[in-house]
Amino acid sequence: MTLEDMQNRLGCWLDGSGPNPEIVMSTRVRLARNLKERRFSHRAEKDELQQILTEVTTAVEETQALGESTVISIREISEEDRRFLLERHLVSNELVSSDWPTAVIVGDDECRSVMVNEEDHLRIQVMQSGFQPGATWVMAEEIESCLESRLEYAFSDQYGYLTACPTNAGTGLRISVLLHLPGLGLTGQIGRALKGIAQVGLAVRGLYGEGTEAMGNFFQVSNQTTLGQSEPDIIGSLERVTRQVIEHEGTARRILLKDAKPQIEDKVWRAFGLLRSGRLMRPDEVLNLCSAVRMGLGLGLLSGVSCSLINSLMVLSQPAHIERIAGKSLSESESNAARADLVRKLLQNCNAC
Amino acid sequence: MTLEDMQNRLGCWLDGSGPNPEIVMSTRVRLARNLKERRFSHRAEKDELQQILTEVTTAVEETQALGESTVISIREISEEDRRFLLERHLVSNELVSSDWPTAVIVGDDECRSVMVNEEDHLRIQVMQSGFQPGATWVMAEEIESCLESRLEYAFSDQYGYLTACPTNAGTGLRISVLLHLPGLGLTGQIGRALKGIAQVGLAVRGLYGEGTEAMGNFFQVSNQTTLGQSEPDIIGSLERVTRQVIEHEGTARRILLKDAKPQIEDKVWRAFGLLRSGRLMRPDEVLNLCSAVRMGLGLGLLSGVSCSLINSLMVLSQPAHIERIAGKSLSESESNAARADLVRKLLQNCNAC
Repeated sequence: MTLEDMQNRLGCWLDGSGPNPEIVMSTRVRLARNLKERRFSHRAEKDELQQILTEVTTAVEETQALGESTVISIREISEEDRRFLLERHLVSNELVSSDWPTAVIVGDDECRSVMVNEEDHLRIQVMQSGFQPGATWVMAEEIESCLESRLEYAFSDQYGYLTACPTNAGTGLRISVLLHLPGLGLTGQIGRALKGIAQVGLAVRGLYGEGTEAMGNFFQVSNQTTLGQSEPDIIGSLERVTRQVIEHEGTARRILLKDAKPQIEDKVWRAFGLLRSGRLMRPDEVLNLCSAVRMGLGLGLLSGVSCSLINSLMVLSQPAHIERIAGKSLSESESNAARADLVRKLLQNCNAC
Repeated sequence: MTLEDMQNRLGCWLDGSGPNPEIVMSTRVRLARNLKERRFSHRAEKDELQQILTEVTTAVEETQALGESTVISIREISEEDRRFLLERHLVSNELVSSDWPTAVIVGDDECRSVMVNEEDHLRIQVMQSGFQPGATWVMAEEIESCLESRLEYAFSDQYGYLTACPTNAGTGLRISVLLHLPGLGLTGQIGRALKGIAQVGLAVRGLYGEGTEAMGNFFQVSNQTTLGQSEPDIIGSLERVTRQVIEHEGTARRILLKDAKPQIEDKVWRAFGLLRSGRLMRPDEVLNLCSAVRMGLGLGLLSGVSCSLINSLMVLSQPAHIERIAGKSLSESESNAARADLVRKLLQNCNAC
């Protein structure tokens, strides 16, 4: 699989399947692991990191832990391609900006991947569509066990898995859900909901991390504590809170539908109309319009458009994707024009009604 | 012809024909006349006004001055229907709010009409699509001459035709053009252009009279002086100024196309997309969106939509039209919903590209 292959299709975690996909876009599990008796990434020499990279890569390939997979060496790809991988949620900023040997190994459906030599030697990542914390965690554990047949993880009986940063130690588990909360946004309850989430010890960020909170009412919610709690406790806690948020969002949407159906319908259809007719579009506008259309799909106010298509638009319309598809670097206005063209093309065959 | 017949089609002065229809939507001529030895409308008793009404109506019918025509007695129609006639530019506010006997006699194509017992006994009106000052005036004169075979007009050798208000005396001629100036609007030159028009003694108003100046960059320009100038002088002066405005507007559009084509194309297509997808629309929004689409048609940025259809939308989407088509009175939000539905329906078969 090459980046060219990737740009023309999307990770299956965007296919709108799974439970509650209209509110929970996706579930993600990440396990941090380090190799025994090796220095952490930012302490190790380049040679050692190169050795670790080879060792992990070989283990993944030989065990087929990710099924068919591709190794992408970050040093060998351009700045644009690094941003492309960031936009696909396959790598972290830290991984692509390190000056030591790093890589991401990506399973063919992009649901499973391993970052090598990020802050920790291994960051095993599984993403699934919809609300599936248990299943997603089990998949991550399977990869972890599979690799354990070739690799020995740094582990302490007292602390559990050892990590470069103490906030990841213990289970090494970070579980997150990507929530779409337009109902709470439109009814003005989002601030209180997010505050409630923070109060029970979970972290809230925007679609593309810190500082992107306002984008289209998309929010990532994840656990902050990894130490002193068992994996089932961590997952159970996130699951419980997420269920409450799903319920509040559902109530808010029902209230909107009862009290302001014409206004919401208008908002949804205008968003769809603009996506289908604009000639210049900034990425944040596409996100906001997709947010409205997704809400319309969830509320049954619009049909004939698949949720997965709208999810795809949100990723494909990101700047590095637009440049990759164009095959060259673009000025901001060229990018806005190419983005609008792509969005129109992808929506042109919809029989929306 | 009944109001029901009228609501389902439009006056031919909206058909987008004639010279320069992309900038001059229509040309209108109005001649004010009064009957000899009769008191002006606001001085006359009801009996006298009723007599005048009968006399004028009979003259119009017997001479066929308007071709096939219909007499609409204002006292006999509802408030809503009066607004309906106002929206079609067939009557004045003064005519429909008088408490004495008034009527409008409308030719079947709505291009020719006569208001009876407005401020003056007769207000002969001719509207034509595009920029046709000479032809429109000739048509009005023909109606006037035709009626003169049955009616005797109040005329003074010293002053010319006598009218209730001295500002209309002499020729009794008011000629106006309805201009669409989005180029001057978007390039920020509209203020200067309108000031220039005012400086040569012409009046500028919005689409629906005073206070509607900002609507969609539509402006009515008309002569203010009727006395002491011959008809050809009045018409020549308006014609000259209008040609200059057409030239400036054309230059502004060419500059926009050269310097900001992507932005203009985006604006035009977004407007079209919103018209085709909105579920709630206020009348002023429809006007503004139609203005952008009309500009797009004029600049060749959009095709497959006729100018006459867009012109129609601007009239059909007015509040009293929406209520007439619905067959009942509507709340504001019901009206906005019905308006959006009508606009979508009228545009649904367009193969815009």
